[in-house]
Amino acid sequence: MVYLTKKMHFSASHRLYNPLLNEEENLKLFKKCANKNGHGHNFTLEVTVCGEINPKTGYLIDLKELKEIININVIELLDHSNLNIDIDFFKNVIPTSENIALFAWKALENKIPNAKLYKIKIAESETSAVEYYGN
Amino acid sequence: MVYLTKKMHFSASHRLYNPLLNEEENLKLFKKCANKNGHGHNFTLEVTVCGEINPKTGYLIDLKELKEIININVIELLDHSNLNIDIDFFKNVIPTSENIALFAWKALENKIPNAKLYKIKIAESETSAVEYYGN
Amino acid sequence: MVYLTKKMHFSASHRLYNPLLNEEENLKLFKKCANKNGHGHNFTLEVTVCGEINPKTGYLIDLKELKEIININVIELLDHSNLNIDIDFFKNVIPTSENIALFAWKALENKIPNAKLYKIKIAESETSAVEYYGN
Amino acid sequence: MVYLTKKMHFSASHRLYNPLLNEEENLKLFKKCANKNGHGHNFTLEVTVCGEINPKTGYLIDLKELKEIININVIELLDHSNLNIDIDFFKNVIPTSENIALFAWKALENKIPNAKLYKIKIAESETSAVEYYGN
Amino acid sequence: MVYLTKKMHFSASHRLYNPLLNEEENLKLFKKCANKNGHGHNFTLEVTVCGEINPKTGYLIDLKELKEIININVIELLDHSNLNIDIDFFKNVIPTSENIALFAWKALENKIPNAKLYKIKIAESETSAVEYYGN
Amino acid sequence: MVYLTKKMHFSASHRLYNPLLNEEENLKLFKKCANKNGHGHNFTLEVTVCGEINPKTGYLIDLKELKEIININVIELLDHSNLNIDIDFFKNVIPTSENIALFAWKALENKIPNAKLYKIKIAESETSAVEYYGN
Repeated sequence: MVYLTKKMHFSASHRLYNPLLNEEENLKLFKKCANKNGHGHNFTLEVTVCGEINPKTGYLIDLKELKEIININVIELLDHSNLNIDIDFFKNVIPTSENIALFAWKALENKIPNAKLYKIKIAESETSAVEYYGN
Repeated sequence: MVYLTKKMHFSASHRLYNPLLNEEENLKLFKKCANKNGHGHNFTLEVTVCGEINPKTGYLIDLKELKEIININVIELLDHSNLNIDIDFFKNVIPTSENIALFAWKALENKIPNAKLYKIKIAESETSAVEYYGN
Repeated sequence: MVYLTKKMHFSASHRLYNPLLNEEENLKLFKKCANKNGHGHNFTLEVTVCGEINPKTGYLIDLKELKEIININVIELLDHSNLNIDIDFFKNVIPTSENIALFAWKALENKIPNAKLYKIKIAESETSAVEYYGN
Repeated sequence: MVYLTKKMHFSASHRLYNPLLNEEENLKLFKKCANKNGHGHNFTLEVTVCGEINPKTGYLIDLKELKEIININVIELLDHSNLNIDIDFFKNVIPTSENIALFAWKALENKIPNAKLYKIKIAESETSAVEYYGN
Repeated sequence: MVYLTKKMHFSASHRLYNPLLNEEENLKLFKKCANKNGHGHNFTLEVTVCGEINPKTGYLIDLKELKEIININVIELLDHSNLNIDIDFFKNVIPTSENIALFAWKALENKIPNAKLYKIKIAESETSAVEYYGN
Repeated sequence: MVYLTKKMHFSASHRLYNPLLNEEENLKLFKKCANKNGHGHNFTLEVTVCGEINPKTGYLIDLKELKEIININVIELLDHSNLNIDIDFFKNVIPTSENIALFAWKALENKIPNAKLYKIKIAESETSAVEYYGN
């Protein structure tokens, strides 16, 4: 059993805002992250899959294939988007790194042939990161 | 003469869009960077100043002081902002890295005591950067 | 269950020296790390906590709050210190990365509201790191 | 129980090629990685060992000693080599990162005194990595 | 006048070997870099161009366009190649980082529309780099 | 003419303190950097030399040779030292990054065969750096 990780990037804007709370409560809770016109990040997404090495190729899975699957299911949707407005999933879910990790897990869960999705890691800066293992 | 560089970060959203052109022309020119609801980045700002070492301190300038000057004049304005909407300078100037470098130069030009502003470097990703030396 | 990691830095000096051994034995054991007047590092501290996402905020815990807790309990004590002389914990404990990880665990163990301390990671260079999970 | 990781580098060339397949099948499977004259990488090797802290030293194991063990058993063999031609292990095993991880595990498995080999991590670029835990 | 830098990567193998010298002299001169079957690196290429900001776009030059020019003229040729065997330029020129910088300069010199090639930077590791300004 | 840069590291402790001032004035000037028992950093030293490519080797200068010269003249002196106490140069010179750059320049100035010392860069953290060109 080996674990293979592919790291990719996307750039998006978001606003942390809970629609069940009023403006003042949101500012108190999220401070400048609740600024009305949003802000943005270069997000880093790391996808880890696990499984057996295929003796024919020496690969767990071809990285080019894994990259393409992540591209189609996550990056092309989120890159250069406004998460709150452009992505349905975040209509009723606050687009924190924690929830973006859940989004990526759901988007990739049954999409990796011959390997099992093991971990999603989302970082919105060089000094913080969220990891999610599916439950 | 020594050169001292301080690196700082800000997170902002922007949309590349020339108001003198129509929607279609903007999309052709800027592609996904012109997406209607904007996107965002972690921007890196590097400020380089130059001058003589002060024999009393061994410093060109105290980094804590330089950091505070950059904070007040640039970071606090741009961090967690929507550049197009929140920053007056970008009302009629497209908020590319090139123009953000000009903005930072103007904001810092005569603000550094006992040292000369030498270079502004703006990076919106790990694989590209703009440098500006003031003319 | 998600895992949230916050990375912080502190700069400190230390000397690796076992007071139960003589000078010669210390130099044989620790080589230049036992140099009489000490040396120093930029240490990297990564704190990982785990728990459930709070639906009100989309956060496991607010990173600003986590940063403040780490600041008060670890960084403000260790930053710009001489670990051997200034920190009581290292009076009888050799200030290796291994033992600094134990120090940080004890300092943070019951201080994180609504989340469980999961891992401490200490790196004193870019090419080595110690991880501790509490037992 | 603490975990200690040492990161090292080696530069090598390789060609991904399965000798049981013909030229055309190899190019279809491995694309440019099957180019006839090979290509190369700066590989990163991270070795993680675990065990108890030695109270005499405050170390799990002296990093200089761990570095020397990794040097002798892995780096000196692989650095500046052509993996396919110069390393016997890869005569019948395709030199992917997955298989290099297995090679490093076998080379180090019983070589670390007073600590247990826990993980091997091999990265052939900044955006991908393979991890192996020994089974 | 602004300076714009684009950073790209390629993976290649090479062997440092002067055909005018014999085997022994080459090994003395280049040591393990002269190993018979070659070795390899992840090379980093940074291309810096300079010029005026275009007021229509706010760009010196569109990074996507610059990336495509570098791709066609340098990366597609060198990536996953054996520099000594696959690249004509290195038939009679030793493929050191210094000479790869000259190769990239010649390949890009008159290919950048509306901007002037200013600098080529080649790094074959994280701890060394060569810069070339065209003369 | 090409420019070649070698990056190296050393770990040292220091205390920023001007012996012509009293304790209180030093604390006001240098704040926690003047703490009595010192603190420390991983310093990064980058040495840039320039000159012509040697056609026999394709090198400006062999990096292994350059590394050895920097090692003997700078790294072995400063690494794992207490700059204030162990290094004569800093008996009457405050060991700031600015002055460490001057120290390294003087230590290397006429020591590089067949190349000219062009720049010294000293960084005591990832977010600041000093550059010195010799006058």
